[in-house]
Amino acid sequence: MNVSAVLQVVEENDPFLDKFFVGEMLKQLKALDSYGTYDGWSNAKILDPLILTKERKKEIPVIGDPDEITLARVKAYYSALAATLEHETNLMAVTLVNISHEGFGRALVMVGKLIVIDKVLRDTHRFGFSSVEAMCEQSEKLIAKAKELLEKYPGAATD
Amino acid sequence: MNVSAVLQVVEENDPFLDKFFVGEMLKQLKALDSYGTYDGWSNAKILDPLILTKERKKEIPVIGDPDEITLARVKAYYSALAATLEHETNLMAVTLVNISHEGFGRALVMVGKLIVIDKVLRDTHRFGFSSVEAMCEQSEKLIAKAKELLEKYPGAATD
Repeated sequence: MNVSAVLQVVEENDPFLDKFFVGEMLKQLKALDSYGTYDGWSNAKILDPLILTKERKKEIPVIGDPDEITLARVKAYYSALAATLEHETNLMAVTLVNISHEGFGRALVMVGKLIVIDKVLRDTHRFGFSSVEAMCEQSEKLIAKAKELLEKYPGAATD
Repeated sequence: MNVSAVLQVVEENDPFLDKFFVGEMLKQLKALDSYGTYDGWSNAKILDPLILTKERKKEIPVIGDPDEITLARVKAYYSALAATLEHETNLMAVTLVNISHEGFGRALVMVGKLIVIDKVLRDTHRFGFSSVEAMCEQSEKLIAKAKELLEKYPGAATD
């Protein structure tokens, strides 16, 4: 493992760590931690592998299948989006993430019979964000769009 | 392999073989046949493994993961449903089938942002129908329900 992958890039006092979405993301990541790897880890340290700086991105081989941990992180991200949407709308949101061995796929967040988030997944072996702030920004955009759709098609969302 | 799995149960002149849905199902199954196994096979023979008589069902072990061919058949079924729906409505229908190694999962057919078919999958290693007629009946019910939803929520379906 290269140095830049070991050195933590998320600051312990990053203000975005307090966002509701980040809290849900941490819950999801901890839920996947069946071996207790994260015991005693700070939230910043747990989130850290999701932050792909330019240096870190360079170190990820372009060829190669995404590993189980990366796939689990993608699923955690969409589950956190669904949980945040539930929190903000009081409507049950469900995810369906389908990723092939090669790292291509599709991620959905559904409310009732309405698809509120629909993302084509590519290069999932490089799944990550430039910063915690960027992760929050992207999630807020997706949540805002989802809420627009819920307002537009309330019938399908509650069917 | 047991005798009842070898003896073909679908009659060569089964009138349900002429149904549009069955034609789509055959197209899907043939598309998966990368090794040309079906070359020279009749339509009845190609469909035959999907028909699970009581005797055939008994021979499938309850324990065990579904094999690749069974999973491909499940996907073919939902793709054929989507194709039939497209044919009847002129709207593009997309499928997303997610099956775990254990044979559990979920199958969706989506039109625009509307989920028109949503099935929880269980026991996919026993995927099949009691007859071609039963397969047609089940598909017709699903298509009819999907069309109801399309009429109810045309906005979401064309978004």
